[in-house]
Amino acid sequence: MRRRHLAVLAACVSGVLVTFTLTGFGNANDGHSSAGDGLPKTWTVYAGNPEHNAEFPLPEDGSEAIRKGVSWQFREAMALPLDAGPMDEDVLGYQAASVKTTQMIGTAVGVTAANGRIYAESDWNHVYALDAVTGREIWSAETINEAMGNPVVAGGLVYVGLGDTGFSFSNVLNYASGARVTRGMGFGAVSAFDEKTGREVWRFSTKGQNMPSVVYLHGRIYFGNGDGHMYAVDATTGTQVWATDVGGFNSMSSANYWHDPATGRDLVVAGFSLPHALVAVDAADGHEVWRATVPNVYNTGMGDNSPTVDSRTGLVFQNTVVDFDKATNTSDLGLFAVDAHTGAVRWETKLGRGPSPLAYKAAISMVHDGVVYVGNPATGHTTALNEQTGAVLWETDLGTYSWKGATYQIQNRGGPTLYRGVLYQAAGAYLFAMDPKTGHILAKINGGGRFGIVNPVIVGGTMYLGNSWGWVQAFPLSTLYPGWATHQPGDSR
Amino acid sequence: MRRRHLAVLAACVSGVLVTFTLTGFGNANDGHSSAGDGLPKTWTVYAGNPEHNAEFPLPEDGSEAIRKGVSWQFREAMALPLDAGPMDEDVLGYQAASVKTTQMIGTAVGVTAANGRIYAESDWNHVYALDAVTGREIWSAETINEAMGNPVVAGGLVYVGLGDTGFSFSNVLNYASGARVTRGMGFGAVSAFDEKTGREVWRFSTKGQNMPSVVYLHGRIYFGNGDGHMYAVDATTGTQVWATDVGGFNSMSSANYWHDPATGRDLVVAGFSLPHALVAVDAADGHEVWRATVPNVYNTGMGDNSPTVDSRTGLVFQNTVVDFDKATNTSDLGLFAVDAHTGAVRWETKLGRGPSPLAYKAAISMVHDGVVYVGNPATGHTTALNEQTGAVLWETDLGTYSWKGATYQIQNRGGPTLYRGVLYQAAGAYLFAMDPKTGHILAKINGGGRFGIVNPVIVGGTMYLGNSWGWVQAFPLSTLYPGWATHQPGDSR
Repeated sequence: MRRRHLAVLAACVSGVLVTFTLTGFGNANDGHSSAGDGLPKTWTVYAGNPEHNAEFPLPEDGSEAIRKGVSWQFREAMALPLDAGPMDEDVLGYQAASVKTTQMIGTAVGVTAANGRIYAESDWNHVYALDAVTGREIWSAETINEAMGNPVVAGGLVYVGLGDTGFSFSNVLNYASGARVTRGMGFGAVSAFDEKTGREVWRFSTKGQNMPSVVYLHGRIYFGNGDGHMYAVDATTGTQVWATDVGGFNSMSSANYWHDPATGRDLVVAGFSLPHALVAVDAADGHEVWRATVPNVYNTGMGDNSPTVDSRTGLVFQNTVVDFDKATNTSDLGLFAVDAHTGAVRWETKLGRGPSPLAYKAAISMVHDGVVYVGNPATGHTTALNEQTGAVLWETDLGTYSWKGATYQIQNRGGPTLYRGVLYQAAGAYLFAMDPKTGHILAKINGGGRFGIVNPVIVGGTMYLGNSWGWVQAFPLSTLYPGWATHQPGDSR
Repeated sequence: MRRRHLAVLAACVSGVLVTFTLTGFGNANDGHSSAGDGLPKTWTVYAGNPEHNAEFPLPEDGSEAIRKGVSWQFREAMALPLDAGPMDEDVLGYQAASVKTTQMIGTAVGVTAANGRIYAESDWNHVYALDAVTGREIWSAETINEAMGNPVVAGGLVYVGLGDTGFSFSNVLNYASGARVTRGMGFGAVSAFDEKTGREVWRFSTKGQNMPSVVYLHGRIYFGNGDGHMYAVDATTGTQVWATDVGGFNSMSSANYWHDPATGRDLVVAGFSLPHALVAVDAADGHEVWRATVPNVYNTGMGDNSPTVDSRTGLVFQNTVVDFDKATNTSDLGLFAVDAHTGAVRWETKLGRGPSPLAYKAAISMVHDGVVYVGNPATGHTTALNEQTGAVLWETDLGTYSWKGATYQIQNRGGPTLYRGVLYQAAGAYLFAMDPKTGHILAKINGGGRFGIVNPVIVGGTMYLGNSWGWVQAFPLSTLYPGWATHQPGDSR
């Protein structure tokens, strides 16, 4: 980490505006301020770090309230009633509403914790800054299109990718004729908002949609998007630094990065569809360094999932829907590992078949201490795998719920967070605490509404989440799992 | 008209809630209240009547201010600056923004005048009720998706169709494989709002989008939509009366109706794409009565335009993009007439080739006294045709405008309104007054922003319009054309 800090200080000396972020790159756990609330000062990538383990133990002088655990609920624009029951078609009328509410109303992929605030993006064209202790709205801003990612916070600005899931009729024709397809009907843009006021400071417009989260690195914003490009934009001015046409289109694959300690080079990685590929480009100039794929990718699976990076081992993990069977309308979920140095696929493990998930599909994986954790919407299971071999260590069925006399598999699109020896995950209406060594379910509570693709953010004794029905919530860990502070991994059976 | 009034009174006697609409069916000109503002009491179809001639001479006791001409501007959510210049990409950054702003921000197809109010739908998920004299907001309501039509007002409720233009990736695949295609990614619904308060009273959800305007007839709402159906819904309760699968998908073809004086039957008519057809169903039970088409329809042309009906002659007029030439990327605009009794195409006239218009394409025609009037976005011309033969009576080039040293054809997507011997039309940033006999341009003023597919609504001495940049405006006719009150058709050359 030392080299990075020096790099930022050098930038300050040469006159570049870096007023906030003398710490906080790379592993988010070292990004705390030296005084005040104790939340990270910056949030540079989806889930707060390349590993997607969104856990932030408070420093000694951090907020005592957050350490004990705060509890609040914030209702976004157009939120559905939390207690309406698990079947949102009862509220919205149409049988496929379940698919639509994950993309049309709420917070699609969880929240951001930075500088004493929780930031959330809403599919209902909003971004919110909330007080982390009280849940009170500090500001909200209307956005030019749907906002479906984690806000990225750095340098006094909040970066929000904007777009929508639609294809124009021109692109329907393009696909049929074998021509190139762009995703996004409405405005595609990345907007930067003033962290203090919510005022839009700049907006960078593109042809395709930019719903996934962006990456902030050293004064630039990076992202892959719906017109098949990787972009680098100056974080202060919003002007383009480079754009690389990598082909296909990105749907919801948030960019990630790998810092190569041997060469000092940063790679930016994101998934694309048609052609299906995980693509890595050089952050300096955008040239393509490698691309990787697996056989039999189905639908938009590759461009709908966000890669996870183990900064220490240089392995990149991506999952995608594979092996669609038309007769049974089932698919498998393939999780694969790519060597970030070479782009070689090291292994692929099939996580289990089930009904083909519609639309935005799979949980985003998390890697910690040599183990990859991921939810599987096709089976409802959560799986832990050896990150070097892909061998399954354990697999846990998150179970079912009942509604009006019928029983349903809990929809498992969540990515876990590992904090102080306990694995936390959201799925359906529920929050789970699991033993990370065995997968044993330690506790389960009903949070209301429905959680979509979300990695819980844990700060001190508090868990922060957004849900698909338009709520941002804070839960004390003690109400979820009373033994949270003392649990020893493996002690659960 | 007598028969209809009796039917409504009968409904009252049998206990059905009909408190407002004892007058006002059919030709909107007879729908004035007997006291008060003088605006129509109901607005049952796009542009206020089947002929799409949205003109309302005030009764003797109508509003003196509206008779003299009122002037105001109402700014909708997310409106763009009116004075930003004609090229909205200067505001929004991306070269194709012009196409997107007609579908993403403002009022796509004009406004509704009823009961002292101007009602406007916004692509930015809103419906507004404004005071017709002052432009002051009386209420606004957020809608579950984009609202791109004319609000229909009857029986104390305001009916708004909702949806979006996108295709899901599933539908991209469907088209490529020859399977059925549905339009609309987000929620598709028709919502009914309380005319007094804006409270949503009911919502009828569908699989596809419902952006076009609906028709109100005798206690029911009728519309064609993005899942290829014609629907009849009870206007008071929102429950389905019938649904007919007519195939294909409707994009922006607002329903119209023809009352057959010989049989007493009402037909409901709307356009669909894939297959391309203008479809008429019986309002009573939804059975298909006829369908009509012309050769070489291009893209979604047929389902993107709204049919016009001459109630007296029983002719239905529809235009569509035809004869696409790939080499030059040009198309023609075909206007055709259908005999509403038989569904036979009586004539088709090609209105002139030009650059193929993107997305939502053509002006909605208006018929008055045996003449059909229509704008042509491919050529920028407005054309008048004999409604019985399709012979062109005159054709007027609306001219060009300059912006930053370059010259552009004025985008002509407007439908005219004929009032007291003058033809009024909006195109680009401009409002035109023309002689209806010769097409001679009598006057032209710059209204700011950009007018899209809009038929001006004229009440007394005031013109009401919505524009694509998110403004609802009232213009005194005297500021547009000082001779408006005394002009004699044909006196212009």
